[in-house]
Amino acid sequence: MSHYLVITGGVGGAKFALGLSTTLPASDVTFAVNTGDDFEHLGFHISPDIDTLIYTLAGLNDTDRGWGRREESWNFLSTLRTLDEETWFQLGDRDLAIHVYRTSLLTQGKTLSEVTDVIAKKLGINHFLTPMTDQSLRTVVVTADGKLPFQDYFVKYQSKPIVEAIEFSGSELARLSPGVSEALANDDLCGVIICPSNPYLSIDPILSIPGFRSLLSEITVPVIAVSPIIGGKAIKGPTEKIMNEMDLEAGCSSLSVARHYQDILDGIIIDTVDTEQSEDIAALGLEVSVGETLMTSLQIKQDLAQHCLSLIEKINRSIERC
Amino acid sequence: MSHYLVITGGVGGAKFALGLSTTLPASDVTFAVNTGDDFEHLGFHISPDIDTLIYTLAGLNDTDRGWGRREESWNFLSTLRTLDEETWFQLGDRDLAIHVYRTSLLTQGKTLSEVTDVIAKKLGINHFLTPMTDQSLRTVVVTADGKLPFQDYFVKYQSKPIVEAIEFSGSELARLSPGVSEALANDDLCGVIICPSNPYLSIDPILSIPGFRSLLSEITVPVIAVSPIIGGKAIKGPTEKIMNEMDLEAGCSSLSVARHYQDILDGIIIDTVDTEQSEDIAALGLEVSVGETLMTSLQIKQDLAQHCLSLIEKINRSIERC
Repeated sequence: MSHYLVITGGVGGAKFALGLSTTLPASDVTFAVNTGDDFEHLGFHISPDIDTLIYTLAGLNDTDRGWGRREESWNFLSTLRTLDEETWFQLGDRDLAIHVYRTSLLTQGKTLSEVTDVIAKKLGINHFLTPMTDQSLRTVVVTADGKLPFQDYFVKYQSKPIVEAIEFSGSELARLSPGVSEALANDDLCGVIICPSNPYLSIDPILSIPGFRSLLSEITVPVIAVSPIIGGKAIKGPTEKIMNEMDLEAGCSSLSVARHYQDILDGIIIDTVDTEQSEDIAALGLEVSVGETLMTSLQIKQDLAQHCLSLIEKINRSIERC
Repeated sequence: MSHYLVITGGVGGAKFALGLSTTLPASDVTFAVNTGDDFEHLGFHISPDIDTLIYTLAGLNDTDRGWGRREESWNFLSTLRTLDEETWFQLGDRDLAIHVYRTSLLTQGKTLSEVTDVIAKKLGINHFLTPMTDQSLRTVVVTADGKLPFQDYFVKYQSKPIVEAIEFSGSELARLSPGVSEALANDDLCGVIICPSNPYLSIDPILSIPGFRSLLSEITVPVIAVSPIIGGKAIKGPTEKIMNEMDLEAGCSSLSVARHYQDILDGIIIDTVDTEQSEDIAALGLEVSVGETLMTSLQIKQDLAQHCLSLIEKINRSIERC
């Protein structure tokens, strides 16, 4: 028996998670999902990264558009527009059902963990998804134009404002969700995987939960990451722009990602196009493994998942664990 | 200048209201709408009769289906069904936008009157619509199977349980909405019209507001009704079934309707097929007028509206008023 804790954000993480979920049995994985992007909109509790993961693992995601549900319609939103109501956040008619259902269960007093589990199971997902926390921990982007809640920065202002810093409002009171804590306490835990998500916007919120980062730095099982940067570019979203704005010594690169996670990582997978960075990353004391990380097919996703498991096994063998 | 207060329920009343709204200038009418059918569902405040009136006056109603919006889609509801959530109340994707918007404004502290006015105006309605009350007054159907909230009786149980009585929960604390009170205090008020709606389920909730029924019985302007019964039958809904279950001496008939409103009415319009009931109704002290009341075209709706105005004028002349 072996168990893996997988820390993930939205689209990129979900692609990787799909590879892993079709590689490992349901009982072997805990997907801990970023909820720093969650927000209240029109009275609904919206959990964008959880939804992305759920839609992807359930095979309901729109692969052409890259977000939301497939076979989506937009009549709710177009009607809302006739009422001059805020429509900057794209709410599809099918997507909306999830938000309404989630909000309804939360209002009844269920935790986000419980609600997430119910929704995932009802949509036929066998693997275990859990929010990083059941408390409110909100990503706030400090920009040259002032502080912006994440969705305002990302959707309303299309990631245009220059990022100066990122804060996690409420993190001091947040606790890891029961599902994450159980995975960490699982005797069969043999590795922690950080998905190829935005380190600053998608993974840092999770690492900001008090005690989690130091726990990962001390944990006896390997912690590895898949770099979301390929040849100095991010596949999607504002990762590249943010990393360039952050005045990092190595700019937008896998080396910068490795440095960002340096205190908690044992190993990292970088793309073959970044092979030349291997030496610098290895110098940080990390096991570096090179492979294809651009997940354009299910086969590549599964190969990357297998690559992660192999890297964990290699690190474990080297320290005679698992 | 003349002003009319029009008391209405859902579909039948809305048809009549459309005739009146295309006959009279916007400033001449106040539509007071039943909110006894209102309910909370999935966290939304739903006002079925207000919505029916709004969709009808805005030309957005589905005339084939007989309720809801035209060009409606149902992807929200079908997705909700995959979550095993309650889907007995038909929520269309476009319709839902109204519920979300209304709920959002109510949560911000606006009254139902204010919200109704905003929505009607945004959908291009010039006439003034107002809920009967801003307080919670809920129609409860006492059946052989127990007490049922109106929507449970009407939609979930499809009006099948046998009706023993109808109660109006919260009526003791309800007050007429500001819009209705203003219409009643309007110096130009020259008539009150009770639409051809279900007397028990759609009009009685309005009459249950403390003081309103006695006010109508004493008011110096004519109060008239259009009978919703044609040849012993109701056009739509459970009116006929309920009237038959109520053990009324005259069964389901315009005579029973006249008796039901007897204390407040000065006149009533009944269908030509019920001409033979004129004498019995007149014996109640009412002015009876006979005409076509089956509103199968806009022209008939407008003729019926004109018929009402003429009847009011006739009664007013006979008592030298207006």
